[in-house]
Amino acid sequence: MFEHFLSDTDRAIIHKAKDFAAGSISEQAVSRWYQDGGIPDSVMLSYQNSGLGSLGLPPRYGGSDVSVLAQVQIVEELSRSAGATLPLQSQLYSLNIISLFDDPPQLAMISDQLKATGRACFSLATAQAPADSDLPNGPAVVSERDGRLILSGQKSFVSDGQHAPYILVAAQNQDEHDEQGRAVLSAWLVPLHSEGVQTFAINKLGQKMISSAVVVFNDVALKASWQVGAGDTIRPALERAGDLEHCLICANSLGMAEAAYDDAAQRVAARTAHNHQSADFQQTAMKLADMATRIFHIKAHVYQSAAALQSKKASPLEIALMRRYVPEAAVRVADDAMQIFDAAGYTDQVRASRIWLDCRGNRSAADSEQSMTALAAREVIGRYR
Amino acid sequence: MFEHFLSDTDRAIIHKAKDFAAGSISEQAVSRWYQDGGIPDSVMLSYQNSGLGSLGLPPRYGGSDVSVLAQVQIVEELSRSAGATLPLQSQLYSLNIISLFDDPPQLAMISDQLKATGRACFSLATAQAPADSDLPNGPAVVSERDGRLILSGQKSFVSDGQHAPYILVAAQNQDEHDEQGRAVLSAWLVPLHSEGVQTFAINKLGQKMISSAVVVFNDVALKASWQVGAGDTIRPALERAGDLEHCLICANSLGMAEAAYDDAAQRVAARTAHNHQSADFQQTAMKLADMATRIFHIKAHVYQSAAALQSKKASPLEIALMRRYVPEAAVRVADDAMQIFDAAGYTDQVRASRIWLDCRGNRSAADSEQSMTALAAREVIGRYR
Amino acid sequence: MFEHFLSDTDRAIIHKAKDFAAGSISEQAVSRWYQDGGIPDSVMLSYQNSGLGSLGLPPRYGGSDVSVLAQVQIVEELSRSAGATLPLQSQLYSLNIISLFDDPPQLAMISDQLKATGRACFSLATAQAPADSDLPNGPAVVSERDGRLILSGQKSFVSDGQHAPYILVAAQNQDEHDEQGRAVLSAWLVPLHSEGVQTFAINKLGQKMISSAVVVFNDVALKASWQVGAGDTIRPALERAGDLEHCLICANSLGMAEAAYDDAAQRVAARTAHNHQSADFQQTAMKLADMATRIFHIKAHVYQSAAALQSKKASPLEIALMRRYVPEAAVRVADDAMQIFDAAGYTDQVRASRIWLDCRGNRSAADSEQSMTALAAREVIGRYR
Amino acid sequence: MFEHFLSDTDRAIIHKAKDFAAGSISEQAVSRWYQDGGIPDSVMLSYQNSGLGSLGLPPRYGGSDVSVLAQVQIVEELSRSAGATLPLQSQLYSLNIISLFDDPPQLAMISDQLKATGRACFSLATAQAPADSDLPNGPAVVSERDGRLILSGQKSFVSDGQHAPYILVAAQNQDEHDEQGRAVLSAWLVPLHSEGVQTFAINKLGQKMISSAVVVFNDVALKASWQVGAGDTIRPALERAGDLEHCLICANSLGMAEAAYDDAAQRVAARTAHNHQSADFQQTAMKLADMATRIFHIKAHVYQSAAALQSKKASPLEIALMRRYVPEAAVRVADDAMQIFDAAGYTDQVRASRIWLDCRGNRSAADSEQSMTALAAREVIGRYR
Repeated sequence: MFEHFLSDTDRAIIHKAKDFAAGSISEQAVSRWYQDGGIPDSVMLSYQNSGLGSLGLPPRYGGSDVSVLAQVQIVEELSRSAGATLPLQSQLYSLNIISLFDDPPQLAMISDQLKATGRACFSLATAQAPADSDLPNGPAVVSERDGRLILSGQKSFVSDGQHAPYILVAAQNQDEHDEQGRAVLSAWLVPLHSEGVQTFAINKLGQKMISSAVVVFNDVALKASWQVGAGDTIRPALERAGDLEHCLICANSLGMAEAAYDDAAQRVAARTAHNHQSADFQQTAMKLADMATRIFHIKAHVYQSAAALQSKKASPLEIALMRRYVPEAAVRVADDAMQIFDAAGYTDQVRASRIWLDCRGNRSAADSEQSMTALAAREVIGRYR
Repeated sequence: MFEHFLSDTDRAIIHKAKDFAAGSISEQAVSRWYQDGGIPDSVMLSYQNSGLGSLGLPPRYGGSDVSVLAQVQIVEELSRSAGATLPLQSQLYSLNIISLFDDPPQLAMISDQLKATGRACFSLATAQAPADSDLPNGPAVVSERDGRLILSGQKSFVSDGQHAPYILVAAQNQDEHDEQGRAVLSAWLVPLHSEGVQTFAINKLGQKMISSAVVVFNDVALKASWQVGAGDTIRPALERAGDLEHCLICANSLGMAEAAYDDAAQRVAARTAHNHQSADFQQTAMKLADMATRIFHIKAHVYQSAAALQSKKASPLEIALMRRYVPEAAVRVADDAMQIFDAAGYTDQVRASRIWLDCRGNRSAADSEQSMTALAAREVIGRYR
Repeated sequence: MFEHFLSDTDRAIIHKAKDFAAGSISEQAVSRWYQDGGIPDSVMLSYQNSGLGSLGLPPRYGGSDVSVLAQVQIVEELSRSAGATLPLQSQLYSLNIISLFDDPPQLAMISDQLKATGRACFSLATAQAPADSDLPNGPAVVSERDGRLILSGQKSFVSDGQHAPYILVAAQNQDEHDEQGRAVLSAWLVPLHSEGVQTFAINKLGQKMISSAVVVFNDVALKASWQVGAGDTIRPALERAGDLEHCLICANSLGMAEAAYDDAAQRVAARTAHNHQSADFQQTAMKLADMATRIFHIKAHVYQSAAALQSKKASPLEIALMRRYVPEAAVRVADDAMQIFDAAGYTDQVRASRIWLDCRGNRSAADSEQSMTALAAREVIGRYR
Repeated sequence: MFEHFLSDTDRAIIHKAKDFAAGSISEQAVSRWYQDGGIPDSVMLSYQNSGLGSLGLPPRYGGSDVSVLAQVQIVEELSRSAGATLPLQSQLYSLNIISLFDDPPQLAMISDQLKATGRACFSLATAQAPADSDLPNGPAVVSERDGRLILSGQKSFVSDGQHAPYILVAAQNQDEHDEQGRAVLSAWLVPLHSEGVQTFAINKLGQKMISSAVVVFNDVALKASWQVGAGDTIRPALERAGDLEHCLICANSLGMAEAAYDDAAQRVAARTAHNHQSADFQQTAMKLADMATRIFHIKAHVYQSAAALQSKKASPLEIALMRRYVPEAAVRVADDAMQIFDAAGYTDQVRASRIWLDCRGNRSAADSEQSMTALAAREVIGRYR
């Protein structure tokens, strides 16, 4: 229903994503990557070489001029093919965010690394809202001490935080505030092995292809050359990036829900081919109809938000409603698929179980459903006042 | 999200509908019409005179060349303004259906009546599927007896069936079958006061502005001049009309859900203006977010199906999923609105209660949710086989 | 599961209720009472003469020494037989509450009236929490003016408030407070036709056998002889009565849900007897299983709370969870029943539609679900702190 | 609410279970057992020595004369303490089932092994209904060949099937049928290392303390001494055991749901102690109220069914409704708990995530929800016919 929002460039790059998926993503491969905790170098390079790896960077650094809707459809396609949350999606987001920071000089190095390894060379520690207080988390803060800038604080759920050579961190300047009294933010590309940087692994239930870490900054002395972007561009860039992140997370949920639905529908079709009507056929039929309905709703949210974000008309309300609805609805679709596979759905014999686990993670990714509900309500009430 | 599917004519007529609603529909008027069981002649004429009353007829009989999407948006707008199911929507459907019957000569008379009274002069008894077996219902059948064609059978839930001067009935020819072995259908505009026609009122829970009747045909002798359309055009016309009917019913549910949401959100906004945070504020906020989400889903279904129907690409699956989801979701929105009004929501002090009653009726209008689920499942499984 | 909580007296009186229901309650009668807006005198007298009418009064005034669980089962039985909310249940509650006010002298008069007419001669305006602010409501207040006690304020949803000869009102004494700083309460049996008393009808969606009114006290001069009960007994009596009221409301919902389930199951059984398996049989089967499950849950709540209340061990948490769950669950059961009757379920041909309307009213009776959720949460958190 | 169904013996043994749980079950231990895939010998012996290990056996072999309700409460208590599905529960069921087979001579050996090792020396392959057709499964069949009895077939989800020295298998006699035409069943205690027995590990999503296997019988030659119980006692014993199994599975779900609720409520209480009202407090409050309500319903189902089973009055309907409702409701409680812990809920930092995984497994244990719905519907309709 949003065909006309796509440019020719968009269509071409989506086509490449389909080719890549068809050529490189198979259940055998994905289930090995899942166990290994990541995608092997050769596949990352092949992704890079298909012209997808630099997406998110400005065109002169190898990126393409693609719309948000196209990015969303690429993530959907990859997630659908894999039936999993791939690290490719985090990388796409990371490259988008650093590109928003006013074209920093580090992009050349990042682009070179990408071409050489197929991987973004930095992890993201830019979230400002504490994701959760049971894991160590909190704002990173920059303060001046003896004429030097010192970074301290800790960030949770940093993807690839133990492995990427650099950490992109957005920190609050302790002594500088903007007109609304909020701390001015600055961004830094901190080398992983700097003195004072510690990392701890987080063991998630699913999404095993993305390793997550707590990153602790113990009075890390910052060098001027690490800084990324000018001070007053950081906060608006993060806000815009936040909306994009929600769209990409939800696109991942969408693709996984479609994968679960495909598997379940195929199984039902195969079974009903043999014995006309199993005893529970109609119960299964209702599940399929429910799943198809939820996927339609999910897609409407994701495409609509992406199109609105592209044309800079995305309202906080529609982003919040999407973020609140989509990940949970995708878990339900995956759960129904598991149930259609009966006892086998609780084993690693069918990928619906992995999809279910990965989908669950998106319910608390980036922001909680609870905060989205509160945000949505504020928006609604504001409009009617 | 479907703006580009509308033509200029569409936009102009939607604009007229908004003007009419603003000028003629008020809660005071609607609640009186509801008690009186219909819309007064003067309002029907004013509707006709705004150029809306003949919608559905071919342009040369006063209709406009409007898309399905525009018709859907008109019904949405009228239903939202009224917070009720208006008979205007049934009339729009009736005029569409008779126009599908291959331009029958009776259209001139119908158009003249419309101009004079603002009302379609016939009720509809064209449904082929038995709506329900606890009320007398069943196929109308035409058979030959002593050289004359005789109509017998009964139809339930015929809107305006006790009052409109004619009844448009589609009947199965007892002795003629098509290649698939289905009875050939014929259509007739039977005068209400013909010998053998009996009607009985049905007392519905809501939708009180539309009177419903059981119409019984006890061996009614048909006259050749009553026939409408050629035999082989009736069944395809009814199938296409069935999809349109589902869209119009769901558009009514959409408009009513929006009305309930408006009322509830206004009330919450007004209350929170006074005392900052009522004890149950967040519970109400969650309700509002749920309502907004459901309305978004409803709208996506209705607009998408209407656009697809217009371009003749509507699949039975998407129509079935819409028809299964929308009316029930609209009841939930109305129910949440009632609950936000607390005890007053259970009285005639607030229109949310009437909206709830009217919305409930659409869950069994035209077809049941159960049959839609079965249809959806068949479609899904057919695709994956 | 609570058989052993019933005494022999309990069993005997429950038996009488079954006899009364079998003899006096039929669908024909109930649907007439519903249209007439009440139960005729002859039936009220017959209820009285079966020894049920004075339930709630102390034994010496004609009441029986029955447990809360027995009262709950009587309301369940009557509601199940009628498939409606009967005024008998309000009367039972009214007699309980006035009896809690420390054996006031007015009981003799009330008992005499009961014997003569079968009806309690007073309506209840004792609720302290504002049920809703869109209807005029608020605390009734007693103040002293020129040496006389003056009653002012207004009460909403007073059952039978326009017809019963007296109104039992509990009011806050403006100038007296208890140790926790709450206004001391006093209770009064105010004649309906006292100067300054005005009543307005409330038009509810259902529960049509109970007429409801707004009662306004415009500076009503109180007479000493009207007072009921000593000051410090009113508040604890009202609190205990509040728990009982919740139990009786939920027992009404239970009985009505059972009636809806009976009707639906009978219809399904009858239909499947003819044509083995209707196309939507399994969907209906799932509905029946859902309904049976909800009724089991409802019953567990109601019986458990009644037994706990009887042994004075009822916790606010269990009452709140019951009150929050039961009325809504009963509406769902009724809604499923309506849907099983398809289009006929939306008409007055089947009583499921009336049951649905009456069940809906209990969701905002006495207290809102929202306030129950807040109360439940406070209790839970209090326990874990 | 079922206190009076417990005998003194029941109470004493429940007390022992609480003591054992308090002494031997800690989160540190459980999370290690979970990773190790089982409970260490020392703990099994300590369980045995507390007098709990032989439960299910007749008293003269070390068992106690405990009611079904007591067994259910023991499983609840152990599951609540552990926040996991323990193999203790499978063992309890295994001992019950073999004891139902008419006091076979093998009980002495089993009892001796239990005393020596704390473990039942056999796994269970007695299920007759195929749990699922995507994993190899099907009836085990005994046929005569060359004068010898030969066992063939395969069983899925056999707990401990790769490790226990014996496999208790119930097989259909190929050539013998009862009066209703069903195959006569026989039961055998087959040594794991018999020729023709093969096992394959099944990798489940959770319930990691219980290893599961597919067991394949390739023409295993049966010895007469392996037979357990007389032919005509096997089928009724299995039916009675099936009801017990459902109760124990649901008791496990109950205990785990209580554990998840405890953790979540404690966290909420702790957080609200610090900062009065978090932004999402009421949303969390609603979750807690929903969780408490579901746990109440779960408990009512489990205790009611256990009490009915004990007094041999359990109806297939109430067992089916329990089995259909309880495991899914427990998953929801666990899911809400995870969500209350936000992002940490998706990691191994909080046990709610493990509880969620383990709860999910019970939805397809022993029988599917789909088959329970079908069974429930048949029962309901049978009653109303």
